[in-house]
Amino acid sequence: MGERVVGMLGAGLADAAAPLVRADDLGLLRGDGCFESALVRDGDVVWLDAHLGRLAASAARLDLPAPDLDAWRALAGEVVRAWGRPGEAVLRLVLTRGPEDGGPPTGLAMVSALGAKVLRQRAEGVHVLSLSRGMPSDLPAAAPWLLAGVKALSYAVNMASVRYAEAKGADDVVFTSIDGHVLEGPTSTVVWAAGGTLHTVPATEPILDGITVRELFGAVDGIPTTVGPARLEDLHAADGVWLVSSVRRLAPVLSLDGRSCPGGPLTSVLRRALGLPEMARKSLPEPPRST
Amino acid sequence: MGERVVGMLGAGLADAAAPLVRADDLGLLRGDGCFESALVRDGDVVWLDAHLGRLAASAARLDLPAPDLDAWRALAGEVVRAWGRPGEAVLRLVLTRGPEDGGPPTGLAMVSALGAKVLRQRAEGVHVLSLSRGMPSDLPAAAPWLLAGVKALSYAVNMASVRYAEAKGADDVVFTSIDGHVLEGPTSTVVWAAGGTLHTVPATEPILDGITVRELFGAVDGIPTTVGPARLEDLHAADGVWLVSSVRRLAPVLSLDGRSCPGGPLTSVLRRALGLPEMARKSLPEPPRST
Repeated sequence: MGERVVGMLGAGLADAAAPLVRADDLGLLRGDGCFESALVRDGDVVWLDAHLGRLAASAARLDLPAPDLDAWRALAGEVVRAWGRPGEAVLRLVLTRGPEDGGPPTGLAMVSALGAKVLRQRAEGVHVLSLSRGMPSDLPAAAPWLLAGVKALSYAVNMASVRYAEAKGADDVVFTSIDGHVLEGPTSTVVWAAGGTLHTVPATEPILDGITVRELFGAVDGIPTTVGPARLEDLHAADGVWLVSSVRRLAPVLSLDGRSCPGGPLTSVLRRALGLPEMARKSLPEPPRST
Repeated sequence: MGERVVGMLGAGLADAAAPLVRADDLGLLRGDGCFESALVRDGDVVWLDAHLGRLAASAARLDLPAPDLDAWRALAGEVVRAWGRPGEAVLRLVLTRGPEDGGPPTGLAMVSALGAKVLRQRAEGVHVLSLSRGMPSDLPAAAPWLLAGVKALSYAVNMASVRYAEAKGADDVVFTSIDGHVLEGPTSTVVWAAGGTLHTVPATEPILDGITVRELFGAVDGIPTTVGPARLEDLHAADGVWLVSSVRRLAPVLSLDGRSCPGGPLTSVLRRALGLPEMARKSLPEPPRST
């Protein structure tokens, strides 16, 4: 197994190779809880307060007790210090409803190395399939129980979508609503360039409110940004499409449904805005066949 | 905590009070896995083969390795024998993708007592709200990555829907599709009586293929049964509505969206078909106010 450092809320550092969660924890039995993934860079957690804020918002939507953010911040600091290496790593925070028969919520924090796939996709970009998320774009206001915008542990569909894309020779997914709106990636926010402006999907659609896109739009000095709904044809017509997320940061979309996307000369500007080093220019792989 | 007996595939019986699952198990981090809940009655698991078959079907849909059903059967037998009490209990089987960095899937089996709420709802019935599941009724064929019909661990929406209903003074939920079809309960199959026939929703809709409804329809001697799509007005017009599931077995629907449902004189016939004892007749509580 890869190395990792694990800590538990209320108990501190734990043996990462040992079991830590009971079989009757509702996070396991029902995917009933929420999580955050954040980037660690030279011992600092990037935008930690935003991640803690979103964890608290998810907990509220799940009717979980409000997390003690000072305790979470302390636990995050403890696992990051115990990790102790320079460069990048992933910090995961996991909050579950706890044991089925009652008892306090379970809180976990863990730090591990970035996976090879994440680093490759950040450097080389991704071939993307669009897949229906099977829901209308006007979901959230009408149906809070559907948990749109909540970063719940119930990510089985997100994971299945990426596996489906990989089985078709692609790397990642852009979800669409059944009425044809662009939503988000399974673990990312969609950003595109058009008319000299950077665009993203509004959080009024059934998507997760992205933290990294906020960071990005705040950091791209001199490039106008806007939020508004889009359809796939808007992405096809764009001057560049990117998938943005906390850990992978920025993955240029090389192709969408088998159609090449323009190289996106903005990529190096956006990488810089997100604190990524200059990208070595290399030949990009061919897009997969259309499905 | 309530008593329970826990076992792990490949390791046998384990200490139920001790942690058993690592923090990086994808069942916990992503709700990435599947499960079954079955009734234990005097040391026998009701319809165990059907539950194992559905576990294997869910695993296949999730691209998990095919579970070794002989090993699962042996583990189920071991935890049920260790439970060792007469009467009813719940057997849960949980299969996850295992640790994030690789390694075999995690398999858990656990036996615990039936909760008081389950017993009360079985005896007294449930007040039900209809809630949109936010998806169209023709989902499954078009989008296998959405995992319709898979009993995945990602049940956060199911749990949130029940909490929403309880906050409105009801007990349980009937999901509808956005095009108005009756789907299922968050943890049950919908059955209704009309024209002297028992009806249920076809498994071609985006629902879980219910095991107990199969058992029920096979056991109601002399009552015709049929499967076909329905709308809420069909339930309102029915001569009785029931929520059917493996552990609670049969919960008569007392009201739907605040409108009383007929007492369902068939209830005692259906209870008998599912091996439940005769029900003491008692006055039923008032339906909650309409929402």
